[in-house]
Amino acid sequence: MRAVFLLIVAAACQAAAPARAEDGYDLWLRYKPVEPKLRAAYAPLTRNIVIAESPTLDAARTELQRGIGGMLSAQLPVSETATDGSVLIGTPKSSRLIADLRLPLTGLGREGFVIESARLAGHDVTVIAANDDVGALYGTFALLRRMQTGQLLDHLAMREAPASGLRLLNHWDNLDRTVERGYAGFSLWDWHKLPQWRDPRYTDYARANASVGINGTVLTNVNANAQVLTPLYLKKVAALADTFRPWGIRVYLTARFSAPIEIGHLKTADPLAPEVRAWWRAKADEIYRVVPDFGGLLVKANSEGQPGPQEYGRSHADGANMLADAMAPHGGTVIWRAFVYNAKPGEDRAKQAYEEFHPLDGQFRPNVMLQVKNGPIDFQPREPFHPLFGQMPKTPVVLEVQITKEYLGFATHLAYLGTMWEEVLRADTCSPKCGTPVSRTIAGMAGVSNIGADRNWTGSQFDQANWYAFGRLAWNHDIAARDIAEEWARMTWSNNDSVVKPVVGMMMQSRQAVVNYMTPLGLHHLMATDHHYGPSPWVNNLKREDWNPTYFHRADAKGIGFDRTSTGSNAVSQYAPPVRDCFARLNCVSDDDLLWFHHVPWTYRMRSGRTLWDELVGRYDLGVQQVHDMRRTWDSLRSRIDDERFQQVDAFLGIQEEEAQWWRDASVAYFQSISKRPLPKGSKTPAHSLDYYEAISLPYVPGH
Amino acid sequence: MRAVFLLIVAAACQAAAPARAEDGYDLWLRYKPVEPKLRAAYAPLTRNIVIAESPTLDAARTELQRGIGGMLSAQLPVSETATDGSVLIGTPKSSRLIADLRLPLTGLGREGFVIESARLAGHDVTVIAANDDVGALYGTFALLRRMQTGQLLDHLAMREAPASGLRLLNHWDNLDRTVERGYAGFSLWDWHKLPQWRDPRYTDYARANASVGINGTVLTNVNANAQVLTPLYLKKVAALADTFRPWGIRVYLTARFSAPIEIGHLKTADPLAPEVRAWWRAKADEIYRVVPDFGGLLVKANSEGQPGPQEYGRSHADGANMLADAMAPHGGTVIWRAFVYNAKPGEDRAKQAYEEFHPLDGQFRPNVMLQVKNGPIDFQPREPFHPLFGQMPKTPVVLEVQITKEYLGFATHLAYLGTMWEEVLRADTCSPKCGTPVSRTIAGMAGVSNIGADRNWTGSQFDQANWYAFGRLAWNHDIAARDIAEEWARMTWSNNDSVVKPVVGMMMQSRQAVVNYMTPLGLHHLMATDHHYGPSPWVNNLKREDWNPTYFHRADAKGIGFDRTSTGSNAVSQYAPPVRDCFARLNCVSDDDLLWFHHVPWTYRMRSGRTLWDELVGRYDLGVQQVHDMRRTWDSLRSRIDDERFQQVDAFLGIQEEEAQWWRDASVAYFQSISKRPLPKGSKTPAHSLDYYEAISLPYVPGH
Repeated sequence: MRAVFLLIVAAACQAAAPARAEDGYDLWLRYKPVEPKLRAAYAPLTRNIVIAESPTLDAARTELQRGIGGMLSAQLPVSETATDGSVLIGTPKSSRLIADLRLPLTGLGREGFVIESARLAGHDVTVIAANDDVGALYGTFALLRRMQTGQLLDHLAMREAPASGLRLLNHWDNLDRTVERGYAGFSLWDWHKLPQWRDPRYTDYARANASVGINGTVLTNVNANAQVLTPLYLKKVAALADTFRPWGIRVYLTARFSAPIEIGHLKTADPLAPEVRAWWRAKADEIYRVVPDFGGLLVKANSEGQPGPQEYGRSHADGANMLADAMAPHGGTVIWRAFVYNAKPGEDRAKQAYEEFHPLDGQFRPNVMLQVKNGPIDFQPREPFHPLFGQMPKTPVVLEVQITKEYLGFATHLAYLGTMWEEVLRADTCSPKCGTPVSRTIAGMAGVSNIGADRNWTGSQFDQANWYAFGRLAWNHDIAARDIAEEWARMTWSNNDSVVKPVVGMMMQSRQAVVNYMTPLGLHHLMATDHHYGPSPWVNNLKREDWNPTYFHRADAKGIGFDRTSTGSNAVSQYAPPVRDCFARLNCVSDDDLLWFHHVPWTYRMRSGRTLWDELVGRYDLGVQQVHDMRRTWDSLRSRIDDERFQQVDAFLGIQEEEAQWWRDASVAYFQSISKRPLPKGSKTPAHSLDYYEAISLPYVPGH
Repeated sequence: MRAVFLLIVAAACQAAAPARAEDGYDLWLRYKPVEPKLRAAYAPLTRNIVIAESPTLDAARTELQRGIGGMLSAQLPVSETATDGSVLIGTPKSSRLIADLRLPLTGLGREGFVIESARLAGHDVTVIAANDDVGALYGTFALLRRMQTGQLLDHLAMREAPASGLRLLNHWDNLDRTVERGYAGFSLWDWHKLPQWRDPRYTDYARANASVGINGTVLTNVNANAQVLTPLYLKKVAALADTFRPWGIRVYLTARFSAPIEIGHLKTADPLAPEVRAWWRAKADEIYRVVPDFGGLLVKANSEGQPGPQEYGRSHADGANMLADAMAPHGGTVIWRAFVYNAKPGEDRAKQAYEEFHPLDGQFRPNVMLQVKNGPIDFQPREPFHPLFGQMPKTPVVLEVQITKEYLGFATHLAYLGTMWEEVLRADTCSPKCGTPVSRTIAGMAGVSNIGADRNWTGSQFDQANWYAFGRLAWNHDIAARDIAEEWARMTWSNNDSVVKPVVGMMMQSRQAVVNYMTPLGLHHLMATDHHYGPSPWVNNLKREDWNPTYFHRADAKGIGFDRTSTGSNAVSQYAPPVRDCFARLNCVSDDDLLWFHHVPWTYRMRSGRTLWDELVGRYDLGVQQVHDMRRTWDSLRSRIDDERFQQVDAFLGIQEEEAQWWRDASVAYFQSISKRPLPKGSKTPAHSLDYYEAISLPYVPGH
């Protein structure tokens, strides 16, 4: 009988379609079978699930069933009562059993959760409890993550709540489905077929976000298009919001400041004009009629050509507050971006956001948040932290990072950004006093999405780690980047240490490698014009002075770097005094920030004992070497990684190695034409002359 | 022992990742398990494979192994010798066994094949033989198709060769990955990551094409970009060519006529200028160095703003011949498009291709082909056949059809185009004598691709049928559209007649439904400006007279239609006399072409007995009803179709029904504003006023 049964099973199994190769679609939610030892440990603790019904609890249940089905090859039936091995999921409101356990849920808010191994009426159970269904969903993902990373489920006593309430993706997606700075294909949002066709992929997108605690998504580009606020598009937005809602994700839109003119047919967008205020109030009412839990509006105003209140002689606060008044009755938020720089010649672009916004602290409505990029320029491979952090005490500040790698080699360069974000989160603002890292000054995190319609979501396998790390760091600002890398590697590639260790090793040095081969020692913004792909440190003829790489590196016969001390632009003065004093002193500022703050002679003796020139060239050489090493490491994993994903990473590392060499050669050739110094011993002459590199023109670079 | 084995199999099977839902990626090559009866019939005839090694034979082998693996859940081992149930695949050259069988391969060319059930040294075998490996590959797909459609493999005696040697996809894909008239997402070609990263999808694309006999692909848009001819891009092109080659597919590129100026830095592109001729010769040499079997160049010249020889006072023949001379040493072809219409006011646009090209017959080099659209305007839901067919006896003419549905509702409207192409292939040109259908006048077929990066390739499940039907009709111009629909339905949805019959029924009426709700009775080009999405019969203010819908329908108080008889533009005179005479006579021309050729009074009595006005409105009503019926039919299949694909088709039919109503209401409201006649009894007043429909503006329609 048993043999017959198995025969049937085997036949049914063989009869299934040939298994598809892993292609990255499943992200870190692969739920592959665990090793037998772990299976034996998990199975008795995951016999059934006791859970009430609601859209969000249904999401938690189906996800846990999917996970158990994949990892343990087992069904997870729903049970009405708790038995040995039950997993109880819910809230005191949804579950009498959970209420009776009187778990310590106070202070966890809507989104926090506890996971406890408990004894219930004589049975050993696992409880995932929260104050709200969404917390229970997050707890479910946390339990799954434990299993995916091979940790035991005995004696659990976990308690988590997010560091901040706003964990937001920013999609720079246009209505024609192109994505500004998008390197993963078309926009996910197939506007033309919405609202009728809800691609199952939208649900998988929401699952992935929920799994790392992302709770909001701005669907549209900050370089905004007012059309998305018309009734035709709001219906489509509502369909996405409906799909995301069970997964705890709210939708946001970007608001084009001139929308009252463009789609409202008013003559002005002056934020103090009564008809403008009335128009936005009516628009907010309309939005909330179709999306009752709409998150809010994100605004880029008076920046890079976007319209804004300054056109009417009004301040950023006037503009933000007008929108905030429209949103307030519905509980909506206005997120105002601090990324501004005007075109005054002779100014230091790094100073301008602080100059414009610092005086406005205290002038914003309570439902306005200020979104500040991690550094004062624009998502460079490395920047010092933005001086606004810690210095807007009366304004909720959102830290904006860029997950998509506009300045770090697009999708083909492997660069794990967890280390970059860890660096800024841990940077000490010394505001109001030292020991106050950026992480303690912020009310949320926003990440510019790297997600597109590419099968692997992010354009490369390793860029999935940046989506993952953003979510994890937004939830908990204190997790170490290395721990996140390890979690991700275990879930994405293998729980085998012989894979995890080398993969984490590659990831942990990858961002510094990019810094080394692109912009070492505090250099910045040396990328090609507009599309930012490849090196162009020589460019000096752009319309605006502060768009030119030469404006940023200021190399001359004597030395290189941007003097931002009191003898220069004095941008250092925007930081709290202890920070300012360190940045301003050559013997305190780190090598990593040296040329960001100082113009330094080529002959300057570095901490390494080498001259600046030798050190600079050495860093470029090191960057190339680091990519070479990553490539060799990856190659050693060939037999341990599924073929299609292995090949893709392998091909991309090949591209990265070529391009690291291109960056190094072009940059060294250019800077040598200025420094007139010989290369340090052992450093190779660039493959081509400077002319060759300057002549490279790539008109169809993606994301532009 | 057996039980243990099965236990292991069962465990291994359960351990596999949860099976992914069908999403359309597998196209018609799903290879799902066949019913037990067929399995029992097929298995003894497919025990092993006897085949030599070559890139193309390897492709045939892996495809057959994949097919047998999926359909029969069985391995198909390679054997050195023939035994009972062997499948022998190859050529007399690659296989001694096949040579000895002395099969009737004469006259089959490179691409034809025979499939025979044979007796070999006492064994019953199946032989797939051809003169060239690629023929054996096509034969392999033919054998698989028999199995996929549930036909027996006994007593086989098949013999096939393609109707013509050129079966070509035209991708209107731009280098920035947008696709002109593309409704399936981004371009498949990820130029940025080529040549290093060869997406496995490129191979699946080649497999799908080979399975229906498509043997060439033009990678780039006819509105061409010279950059693709630069060394940077030719390396990328070569990587695609390398991937496609084993599958019998050659790559072609579009040639921008002004490329010698744009990338060659010449002062002219005059085809008679020696430096221009030398530049193209050198460029051809360069192309063939990297792609030795490069197919050729496709050119759109002096059409819709594209540069061409007329700018230099030269003819189309001068331009084509110059390129042909450059390609000839390498065996390359130049395909010159006949889609031209100049801006002379008062002209009938339908006449212009004939007027420009008919006098050039006999003036082209032997390696020039003329690519002519199926009808004289531009891929309308219905057009009479193009007058150039049969009337260029000294020029190889390629029939160009549009697989992507620019004028038939994009990806969301279900419209099977097999019936449209059958109609044109079977149209009698009466040139040189009656009984000469278009199919007998052509040297190849080109189809404007509907393929993109969308997971289901073509933007919808049912649009896959149009890719499939194009290939099948290009291979064999005489297969019935209904038979192709049935083949496709069996392979794509189910071999169960309870699915096949209703699906084929939907497909067979679907294109006529679109004609009915968009442009019935010979009306044409009433679509919205530029993007062609939705109705705009009222538009009359475009720069060029012959871009306006009013130019095409010419409705006035008395009647409607374009008089193309001798009392009007006399376009009918371009057809052979028997065709001309029928088109010109109201009592001979079919209702379907009536308003294409005649301006007819609203009161004209149709064959149905109704007035023209009543008939026109009746057709619009019928079109809406037909979509409603398709939707109901589909809904009846809910339990028989896998969920994700079912839901997608269901959602799209919902969109189509809404939009058919929009088309009908807007068109009826508009034409009634001119005819001033009451709607026929039972026909409903449009939902909104004409103003409402005229005000609809959709700025971000895809494919534009």
